[in-house]
Amino acid sequence: MKIIREIPAMKDWVRAVKKKGETICLVPTMGYLHKGHLDLMRMGKPMADHLVISIFVNPTQFGPSEDLDKYPRDLPRDTELAASVGVECIFHPSAEAMYPKGYCTYVEVENISEGLCGASRPGHFRGVATVVTKLFNIIEPDIAIFGEKDYQQLAVLRKMAEDLNMNVQVLAHPTVREDDGLAMSSRNKYLSTEQRQYALVLSQALLKARRLVEQGERSAEAIKAEAVRMIEQTPESTVDYVEIVDPALLKPVERIEGRAVMALAVRVGATRLIDNITLEAS
Amino acid sequence: MKIIREIPAMKDWVRAVKKKGETICLVPTMGYLHKGHLDLMRMGKPMADHLVISIFVNPTQFGPSEDLDKYPRDLPRDTELAASVGVECIFHPSAEAMYPKGYCTYVEVENISEGLCGASRPGHFRGVATVVTKLFNIIEPDIAIFGEKDYQQLAVLRKMAEDLNMNVQVLAHPTVREDDGLAMSSRNKYLSTEQRQYALVLSQALLKARRLVEQGERSAEAIKAEAVRMIEQTPESTVDYVEIVDPALLKPVERIEGRAVMALAVRVGATRLIDNITLEAS
Repeated sequence: MKIIREIPAMKDWVRAVKKKGETICLVPTMGYLHKGHLDLMRMGKPMADHLVISIFVNPTQFGPSEDLDKYPRDLPRDTELAASVGVECIFHPSAEAMYPKGYCTYVEVENISEGLCGASRPGHFRGVATVVTKLFNIIEPDIAIFGEKDYQQLAVLRKMAEDLNMNVQVLAHPTVREDDGLAMSSRNKYLSTEQRQYALVLSQALLKARRLVEQGERSAEAIKAEAVRMIEQTPESTVDYVEIVDPALLKPVERIEGRAVMALAVRVGATRLIDNITLEAS
Repeated sequence: MKIIREIPAMKDWVRAVKKKGETICLVPTMGYLHKGHLDLMRMGKPMADHLVISIFVNPTQFGPSEDLDKYPRDLPRDTELAASVGVECIFHPSAEAMYPKGYCTYVEVENISEGLCGASRPGHFRGVATVVTKLFNIIEPDIAIFGEKDYQQLAVLRKMAEDLNMNVQVLAHPTVREDDGLAMSSRNKYLSTEQRQYALVLSQALLKARRLVEQGERSAEAIKAEAVRMIEQTPESTVDYVEIVDPALLKPVERIEGRAVMALAVRVGATRLIDNITLEAS
């Protein structure tokens, strides 16, 4: 297992691979790996000659009052876990190497970035699109895999790759969940034992929405109201947003017709958690 | 000479070249080629295995009241001229292929884009940075050459390539001038015979500035004032801006110390012309 910290060294490694005509699959992460990340890596392993992951807690996607400094980090454990699923190389740059003094270039995906998490985290997706563009230029992956748990991120990055004619296939992996339904997230670590229980309301509200649609409910308003009600009844839990949108451009829909995505963000104590589910009117 | 209009066909051409381990030099243009463009191509010809130019009048870099529709176009003539300097392939996409319905991703280079032309043409450099990112992703050049006449564009693109870790070397070619000093530009075509004479004030004001510095003048204010005076004395000519800035970040300087760039934009009749010169205090 190779850990590369410098951008020029990473580019050298990539150049040697490309010279042989071989392919690269990249799984970008912020580290503190969990089973969700590992499933993305397992998915990527057979898809290319080389499986690379990046571990970088990207400062430009955190707001000034967010958890950049306390975001959990554990490189030794991450290295072991990545090795266990066949990762060949970890790119782990410093913030100073990625954003040197005077850095001033940003990639913006308009519209899709603005609602949902974009509304409560201004600049977040600009930071995501920018760092992923940089990672794509440094690692030149043929395939990059992102988790569906961060649905808006996935939609933003797909649109970015398409709009900017990037030479990479952006693939999604379904949200990986704990046995009781909680979507895996490095931020789950912040939860107390009680909060860990309260946090089940996210997946339960989404499953309830799916059942409502299966029972014939088509009004987005009614489905969202039920989710809000469930969240508000849960201790320590407050709604950041509950929204039902079209799957590609993430525009709110009024009625469920064909496929839609229900996405929500909930604060449980001080921890902001997100989750989403596909709703399908048959 | 190959003219490729479709993005997938261009990517196929590039893939075949890269598979052989060969290199590409790109000269991006908006067409209506003049000797300035051809000199850039001559410079690029020996630098890579393949010389590609793009001809694309990029709508996203024109403001709503600017000359997008009347910008001069002449593909048959451009093709002949490009062939005469050894261009192997012209990429000539449609605006619809480059910016399909729903397009929403933009690259912004902050700070450097804001003064000079950026102040009178809001959004211009965002359009430039975006289209050049797209061209770089489609054509994957090892080297790209831009003219120094568009000095701010060059500085923006250099910073963009560096910040986003792009795998391309951005090179500059000195401004190519008519015998009487007028910087070559496709927009010179808009000038009447009289205006063509008045337009000499741009290069003359810059040369006067250089002489002032050689004579010991160090005050940017004094040097700029002389240029403004010369322009205001010229019929049909109005100052858009006259500025002296540092060469990399384009921040205005108060005194000439070491190298600086004096840049100006002048409206001659309805035509906006730009030019610049390096000033050096010895």
